[in-house]
Amino acid sequence: MTYASVSINTPPPYLTLASNEKLPVVLSIAGTDPSGGAGLEADMKTITAHRCYAMTCVTSVNVQTPAKVYSIHNTPKDVVFQILETNLQDMKCDVIKTGMLTVPAIEVLHEKLLQLGENRPKLVVDPVFVATAGSSLAGEDVVTLIRDKIAPFAEVLTPNIPECFKLLGEERKINKLHDIFEIGKELAKITKCANILVKGGHIPWSDEGEKYITDVLYLGAEQKFIVFRGNFVNTTHTHGTGCTLASAIASNLARGYSLPQSVYGGVEYVQNAVAIGCDVTNPQIKDNGPINHVYAIEIPLEKMITDECFTALDVLPKKQIASAADKIPGGNFFEYLINHPKVKPHWDSYVNHEFVEKVADGTLERKKFRFFIEQDYAYLVDYARVHCIAGSKAPCLEDIEKELSIVASVRNEMGEHEKRLTEEFGVPDQAYFQNIARGPALKAYSRYFNDVSRRGNWQELVAALTPCLMGYGYALTKMKGKVTAAEGSAYYKWCETYSSPWYCAAMAEGELLLNHILETYPPEDLDILVRIYGEVCELETNFWTAALEYE
Amino acid sequence: MTYASVSINTPPPYLTLASNEKLPVVLSIAGTDPSGGAGLEADMKTITAHRCYAMTCVTSVNVQTPAKVYSIHNTPKDVVFQILETNLQDMKCDVIKTGMLTVPAIEVLHEKLLQLGENRPKLVVDPVFVATAGSSLAGEDVVTLIRDKIAPFAEVLTPNIPECFKLLGEERKINKLHDIFEIGKELAKITKCANILVKGGHIPWSDEGEKYITDVLYLGAEQKFIVFRGNFVNTTHTHGTGCTLASAIASNLARGYSLPQSVYGGVEYVQNAVAIGCDVTNPQIKDNGPINHVYAIEIPLEKMITDECFTALDVLPKKQIASAADKIPGGNFFEYLINHPKVKPHWDSYVNHEFVEKVADGTLERKKFRFFIEQDYAYLVDYARVHCIAGSKAPCLEDIEKELSIVASVRNEMGEHEKRLTEEFGVPDQAYFQNIARGPALKAYSRYFNDVSRRGNWQELVAALTPCLMGYGYALTKMKGKVTAAEGSAYYKWCETYSSPWYCAAMAEGELLLNHILETYPPEDLDILVRIYGEVCELETNFWTAALEYE
Repeated sequence: MTYASVSINTPPPYLTLASNEKLPVVLSIAGTDPSGGAGLEADMKTITAHRCYAMTCVTSVNVQTPAKVYSIHNTPKDVVFQILETNLQDMKCDVIKTGMLTVPAIEVLHEKLLQLGENRPKLVVDPVFVATAGSSLAGEDVVTLIRDKIAPFAEVLTPNIPECFKLLGEERKINKLHDIFEIGKELAKITKCANILVKGGHIPWSDEGEKYITDVLYLGAEQKFIVFRGNFVNTTHTHGTGCTLASAIASNLARGYSLPQSVYGGVEYVQNAVAIGCDVTNPQIKDNGPINHVYAIEIPLEKMITDECFTALDVLPKKQIASAADKIPGGNFFEYLINHPKVKPHWDSYVNHEFVEKVADGTLERKKFRFFIEQDYAYLVDYARVHCIAGSKAPCLEDIEKELSIVASVRNEMGEHEKRLTEEFGVPDQAYFQNIARGPALKAYSRYFNDVSRRGNWQELVAALTPCLMGYGYALTKMKGKVTAAEGSAYYKWCETYSSPWYCAAMAEGELLLNHILETYPPEDLDILVRIYGEVCELETNFWTAALEYE
Repeated sequence: MTYASVSINTPPPYLTLASNEKLPVVLSIAGTDPSGGAGLEADMKTITAHRCYAMTCVTSVNVQTPAKVYSIHNTPKDVVFQILETNLQDMKCDVIKTGMLTVPAIEVLHEKLLQLGENRPKLVVDPVFVATAGSSLAGEDVVTLIRDKIAPFAEVLTPNIPECFKLLGEERKINKLHDIFEIGKELAKITKCANILVKGGHIPWSDEGEKYITDVLYLGAEQKFIVFRGNFVNTTHTHGTGCTLASAIASNLARGYSLPQSVYGGVEYVQNAVAIGCDVTNPQIKDNGPINHVYAIEIPLEKMITDECFTALDVLPKKQIASAADKIPGGNFFEYLINHPKVKPHWDSYVNHEFVEKVADGTLERKKFRFFIEQDYAYLVDYARVHCIAGSKAPCLEDIEKELSIVASVRNEMGEHEKRLTEEFGVPDQAYFQNIARGPALKAYSRYFNDVSRRGNWQELVAALTPCLMGYGYALTKMKGKVTAAEGSAYYKWCETYSSPWYCAAMAEGELLLNHILETYPPEDLDILVRIYGEVCELETNFWTAALEYE
């Protein structure tokens, strides 16, 4: 009988450095959500996405989806007892996280916590009384029991506002942040749990028109509050956020982070999962949907394919990629980009920027120019770095070298900046350049670079790097002959640089490179390159605006 | 009341390109393993690690750990019915994966599959009858029902050998691969399931002393077999491998891969998870343990810290890292490395290699030399690339530039190789260099580089890159004055290159760099650098051996 044979490779050698890995272990005690977005399922996904080891104790098999809770089937007390008993006997456990609890589960857990005494794992209690969609998941008896029998053992209690009211036994008015502080403090007293995280996801605050949400952590021992101020995402797809946040906190604690650190990590994780979202419900389910627990996870089989040293290519021939170049009328990708509706407004405000006009006519305040040169100097370090990454991802040596030669020119540009700062502004020494404080516009730009570097391919990196090269040239070439700043001044020289023949040659190379990357880019993804190009033009605009508005 | 405030950043912008992501959905119908390594829990972890969306249908709340199955509590038929009904009504579903099934679950699923007809999701059936630890999880009635009512609907059935025997109704002798082929073919006939994956993890085969395992996929429509030949890992920690493999296959299918591709990806994932392993059981549990489902997942909070553009630094001050340099007696890290017991044997066989002697005295066969030069040429492309990555990860501009200047010298070296190949061996044109076929020694070396590049930091990359630089110099400097190959010949010139003053200067730089990386490397991780250095010396040895043995 004939057969094909595929050899499986040994694991990536670097990973085996961590062999027999001590994974932090989190035990989730909760009810199920078979539709996968909340409850025990959300806990498992979150713990897994945090590279921790998840164990479970099902308190109740619930039938629910984001639409509603259809029915609840509690696990008998003896089964809960046996699960906790065998899990804690045979397995390690760093943190216990509770979600929906039943009366029997509370009784068993309470006994177990007493019995373990000082040896008990850390405990994170999410007092689940109501599903996000509104269905009640617990009676009054459970509220009282969690408050009296479980909360006192907890490292942190994580109620949302309705759950706070349940625990307090009454509703409160919330008009200002201070009201939430009061609730946190009072809950710590009532529950004898030292630390309270009041989750404010339900309440969008408003500040100069910008909406935001807050989670307030009360640290009892220090009588201190930490307010985590997040971005309000306009979505009703928040099914499972509560379970997810508590599980993320539990996972971070299991890894040894402090409580404020763990809460920070959890809040950021949940916000990303909400903002990115996922499309897994059928069309009739409109009002609520699951969040994206896996937004940061890479697809194993895709990695096996892109890493040519896996054996995947034996069964998975490399995809033949059509060229996206055919989709560009006229064949000039640069022209296509700057006229694309998603790019044009950003490109236009970038290359027609008031900052440039004010440098050219010499009216820009000196301190603003200095601020710009300093920020740009720090930017160029990132820019060089990202070109290195683009080089490392480039398909062939020729393309690698193109990136490296750009790094060399960047180095020249930095030298010019150093000269400017030394001669014009009397900067004393090299140490100064290392310690430039990065403003918000630069930070946002760096973050974008960082992000594309981690996740983007060569073509996407080139798309992110090109607006800087092209825009400076465009903005300053337009000024040619119109520069009225004193000849020989720093302003004058700066204008000259970006309209010099040398710079124009670099721009011509840049235009060629933009066409070149299309040859191996999937046509169906073209919009990604367009979006990146547009977004970076916007970052460039903000960068000049920040200098213009610097005080 | 005073409080600290932490602003949460918006999600990484690049990720939002995938907003409202269409996650492939996999529904796992299975029994629980509260200890987390097998059953529904293994399924959830695997599906999540594959960046898919997991749904569940608990057929039974089991009490089990890797030690044993303590008890089984079946979910009532009406609850199973309600779960399947609501999940498939409210949620999308691409693939259903079954594990441990009960009689009621089989009846409900069978009805549902009939009812859905052609609209049913793909089905992956793992016929779970026996836990890895040996406990029976299903009676004879379940075996018959799965065979008759479920298997005929399946895309693939994934029994292990004992499960094959149960389905066949009798045990078979397995002496050779052909016996497994027969079993696969017969099972396809009996179960009316077109494709059968016979999992061979229980049987290590032996081939010239090397142990390996096989999973055999029978593709009924084409009457074809694919044998996945894996490395036998000597461990009993294989709890949950069966569930994990079937879930990985289901996840890959949900993403649109073909069955052979999906099986390949699953087998590779499980092998990595077994080989890397994890330490989560208490000491008395020795014979069995869970595998590492999360080996490829990055820790969210660690990413938030290393990425300076997250707000994590507000709550998480950067760790002050002690210098590992203090741990090196004499302060010369290079000397420390080549005399370290984990490095010395590999370093010695590398720098005293017969290949070099035979080049130096001119006795190496020309075809072997040519093979070497070609492989080395292809290697240098990787080498340049990894230096780019090291540059991108370097802490400051000065260190970035060091890496780039090395890339420039590598380019020179490649030029020399091109000249050799053209002048000595009459290679006609540039196209030739792009299409050099990579031998196994080069592949293994590239794979190692690839792996460290993806996961290692700057210091670890430098450790991986340095043996090549230093070893060639050491090996050839030792030959100085002893080279008897004809003066001016290609052999002679090759020897000269690596003992030239220019090359010695590069080595001196390399030694300095090795000391430099220690300044910011955690002392407790020093062993990682040592292991990397030793492992790369071994790869270098194999590289020369491959040339010596080339026929």
